[in-house]
Amino acid sequence: MHIQKPRLLTPGPTPLYPKALQAMMGAEIHHRTQDFRDLYLSVLADLKVVLGTAHDVLILASSGTGAMEAAVTNCFSPGDRVIVCSAGKFGERWVELAQAYGLDVLTLSAPYGSVVEPATLAQALAANPDVKGVFVQASESSTGAAHDVRAMGKIAQATPALFVVDAITGIGTMPLAIDPWGLDFVIGGSQKAFMLPPGLAFLSISPKAWERMDAARLPRYYFDLRREKKNAAKGESSWTPATSLILGLAEVLKYLKTLGMDQLIDNAQQLAAATRAACGALGLELFAPGSPSGAVTAIQAPPGLSSSVIVKEFRQKFGSIIADGQGEMKGRIFRIGHLGYFDIVDLFALVAELELILNANGVPVKLGTGVAAVQTHYASHTAGKKQPVAV
Amino acid sequence: MHIQKPRLLTPGPTPLYPKALQAMMGAEIHHRTQDFRDLYLSVLADLKVVLGTAHDVLILASSGTGAMEAAVTNCFSPGDRVIVCSAGKFGERWVELAQAYGLDVLTLSAPYGSVVEPATLAQALAANPDVKGVFVQASESSTGAAHDVRAMGKIAQATPALFVVDAITGIGTMPLAIDPWGLDFVIGGSQKAFMLPPGLAFLSISPKAWERMDAARLPRYYFDLRREKKNAAKGESSWTPATSLILGLAEVLKYLKTLGMDQLIDNAQQLAAATRAACGALGLELFAPGSPSGAVTAIQAPPGLSSSVIVKEFRQKFGSIIADGQGEMKGRIFRIGHLGYFDIVDLFALVAELELILNANGVPVKLGTGVAAVQTHYASHTAGKKQPVAV
Repeated sequence: MHIQKPRLLTPGPTPLYPKALQAMMGAEIHHRTQDFRDLYLSVLADLKVVLGTAHDVLILASSGTGAMEAAVTNCFSPGDRVIVCSAGKFGERWVELAQAYGLDVLTLSAPYGSVVEPATLAQALAANPDVKGVFVQASESSTGAAHDVRAMGKIAQATPALFVVDAITGIGTMPLAIDPWGLDFVIGGSQKAFMLPPGLAFLSISPKAWERMDAARLPRYYFDLRREKKNAAKGESSWTPATSLILGLAEVLKYLKTLGMDQLIDNAQQLAAATRAACGALGLELFAPGSPSGAVTAIQAPPGLSSSVIVKEFRQKFGSIIADGQGEMKGRIFRIGHLGYFDIVDLFALVAELELILNANGVPVKLGTGVAAVQTHYASHTAGKKQPVAV
Repeated sequence: MHIQKPRLLTPGPTPLYPKALQAMMGAEIHHRTQDFRDLYLSVLADLKVVLGTAHDVLILASSGTGAMEAAVTNCFSPGDRVIVCSAGKFGERWVELAQAYGLDVLTLSAPYGSVVEPATLAQALAANPDVKGVFVQASESSTGAAHDVRAMGKIAQATPALFVVDAITGIGTMPLAIDPWGLDFVIGGSQKAFMLPPGLAFLSISPKAWERMDAARLPRYYFDLRREKKNAAKGESSWTPATSLILGLAEVLKYLKTLGMDQLIDNAQQLAAATRAACGALGLELFAPGSPSGAVTAIQAPPGLSSSVIVKEFRQKFGSIIADGQGEMKGRIFRIGHLGYFDIVDLFALVAELELILNANGVPVKLGTGVAAVQTHYASHTAGKKQPVAV
């Protein structure tokens, strides 16, 4: 038992789609050529198809946080009052970002593991009719909880506030009907369900958001979306694009169009449900049982055992990389990703590893019982379904 | 459950070592340059270290069968009497090859699933003192059985016969003390424990074999080992080498030197033992229980279920490629590889898949019991061992 394969099982970066990696090798190209413009136009068009929106979709050479910043700086002015629905580390990032640009932030906080309820948002909007924007995470990957962005979008839609959704781990793991639900910004990143290395951010922008840009007085340059839109129409990016990642993205989008976005989402949700079933069989407690995300499952470390030990043993014994809790949740929870290029076979193995780690650390479980829960979930949810899509 | 990752789990081709694949991208080089000569010399030197032999080691741009042919054509003359110890499809290949070149073949056959016993070879050699060569498979991967090449080598060593070992799936899965055991030819291939795509064959050649070459009258040109040896001393190959595979091999050899050949062998043998434990737990019969190979485990299909169905369901349901029986064993046995870049995590998942396939095809097993057998084997064989080597 001496060979160990590295396996990436975190909620981001996620396992890479092999054909995308291969395509990235073709990056000895120049981006100011007609060939690249044609590629960029087709990638933008495919991205719209995959996201299922008629809104404009743009690509930025940045991490997801860059697109979060773009949503702030392009549509708001100093002193604007905004609401942040914060249920974890990424909610706190919205607060920091808005405050860094001098916005007047009203934070609706939910305890870690819970989410901000739509009714709470409705009350806050009613009490603060001057609010210009509402910021939220679709999936809060630090806690494994998912917001009800459908209900929240409907509420914000009836007000002047823009509804800005960090869907970096939400895209491809939960339904997101961008246009009907009133999602003014929907933000994604390459290293999540898009199965690529980090380096690209995406965002969709509603007509309501575009209307606000000319009057918005926050400074912006690299993330100027009006300029980016004008260039994108010609197949150009404002600044040098991350060409290798665009080549990879073209392959991923081809795959996702074949697979179907609904199947990608169902894949993540079934893996998440099977993971929860395994936790139940092994007597482990979920961290966000009330509103579990399809992107990531956060599991509480058993009493007396640090999640940091569990994470370390996954790596040392099996070469598997899972995620510890972030900040004050470090040592208390461990997190397993489901978004993007994961399959049920990954989960069979991961749960077998977890069982051995628990047993070796004084948390006795009967070997195979968690795996059997995953197998049972698989068997009962694939009967009569169409065949999986292989690469 | 709709994403499906392709997984190669056969006894060859085997899973590829990722850093080797990456290195193969550097193949825009010329082979008649000092840089390549230096690389080739270091690869040949490392290969000797890894094989643990003082004999000459050469590399051929061919499949393993090419090196088998080289062993025949370089040391024998038309009408030479030779013994083939045949215990499966690859034993039969020795017979075909020797007969194609006009050798007088005495075949010692063992039924599929069994092996030729050393005593049988000793008797045949005693009865036929004119025998010039003995041909055998170290591991007969068509049946999952391993010959006792140590004992057979000792027997042949005391006679004029050359002892020619097809170790294509034997290298890296069983101890092979080439020099002391009197193994005159030991033949390997890149797509087995060497974790590379097919295209390279290796062979070690003893002084006893070299002595026979000048008098050998079979025709040879591409596989002329004397010419190859002369060129190899200068870092050259006689004909154009498969440069990308040589670059990949350099990475693999670096990895194997770090891992240790003994650990590579133990890895395969423990995986094979854990697979047999899982079969026991699931009530499945082994095809070669008496002399099981560490390279591959051949498992009998349960009564009433074709192994071809099992193989097909592995692929269709999970994207996993395992091997059916060959020739008349097709439909009767299925084969799982352990040689090279396999780890225990692969096996956790594979056995979980197998359990689901058995259940879905009228062979009821309790889910998780085979996995638990693998987990138990792992837990009891890793206590106190040194850490695995990650890439």
